[in-house]
Amino acid sequence: MDGTVTLAGGLEDRSRWVADACPIGKALDVIGTRSALLLMREAYYGTTRFEDFRSRVGLSEAVTAARLRELTEYGLLERHPYREPGQRTRYEYRLTQKGDDLAPVAVGLFNWGTKYESPGGVPPINLTHCDCGSPIRAEVRCEKGHLLSMGDVEATPPHRPNRRR
Amino acid sequence: MDGTVTLAGGLEDRSRWVADACPIGKALDVIGTRSALLLMREAYYGTTRFEDFRSRVGLSEAVTAARLRELTEYGLLERHPYREPGQRTRYEYRLTQKGDDLAPVAVGLFNWGTKYESPGGVPPINLTHCDCGSPIRAEVRCEKGHLLSMGDVEATPPHRPNRRR
Repeated sequence: MDGTVTLAGGLEDRSRWVADACPIGKALDVIGTRSALLLMREAYYGTTRFEDFRSRVGLSEAVTAARLRELTEYGLLERHPYREPGQRTRYEYRLTQKGDDLAPVAVGLFNWGTKYESPGGVPPINLTHCDCGSPIRAEVRCEKGHLLSMGDVEATPPHRPNRRR
Repeated sequence: MDGTVTLAGGLEDRSRWVADACPIGKALDVIGTRSALLLMREAYYGTTRFEDFRSRVGLSEAVTAARLRELTEYGLLERHPYREPGQRTRYEYRLTQKGDDLAPVAVGLFNWGTKYESPGGVPPINLTHCDCGSPIRAEVRCEKGHLLSMGDVEATPPHRPNRRR
């Protein structure tokens, strides 16, 4: 081996697998823009208000409005009305379960960006488990709990012939 | 609670945290395009050759060449020469450790796209642990092994004043 990695055995017969159906592609149709992922990051950090999203991500009003509308339509954020004294009704944006389920993607990007793209590999912010105080990370595991790299993963096309028949 | 989720307590004082330094943003500078992530997906599936990358992701030659060059320059893929009888030397692209370390992001997108965007929530391809045969998934855990959602995560700015002094 020369230090490079691949999925165990690769995908045996890639021609049988239609890439158009790939869930990664479908996910990227929804949250595949840099601005959408950065707005989701802000939602994880507790940002709820339009102006906070806009200024913290550094987007224009128009792009912020378009992205927040998309993320709401796709069900990653939910709009809730609020009103401050003397002001008109405004809306804040809160994470849904569907948005929370993207956590491994966001934390995976955080870990990777810290390891490879941050000075000294030191995170500029600490993410910890609020109960036990330990640092958090995104991992790939099987249902039996084994910790995996891509070299431990096997991909098989659907409708594989049953060899016992 | 109304079914929405946020990071435990949010980020206490977001103004002390400069979003420009965010590792998520830095990671997205490198692999924040849809085409880059889809090429990485192909690399995980065992694709190594230019024409296979191009045709399976459905990109133009120019975009495929530009993205593979970037992914190589950033160190996610490595170029290796090969030559078939009677042909000129060509290059194949193999995953590096840096590329493999993005696995939680790719698997997280795969899981999320399967759950929310695939018919019946059924994956169009099976990803399993090659040793034990169990399905795989991306998770967020703390170093002590607790399985977490974003609601269990606390974010604290760096250089927090030491309260004991």
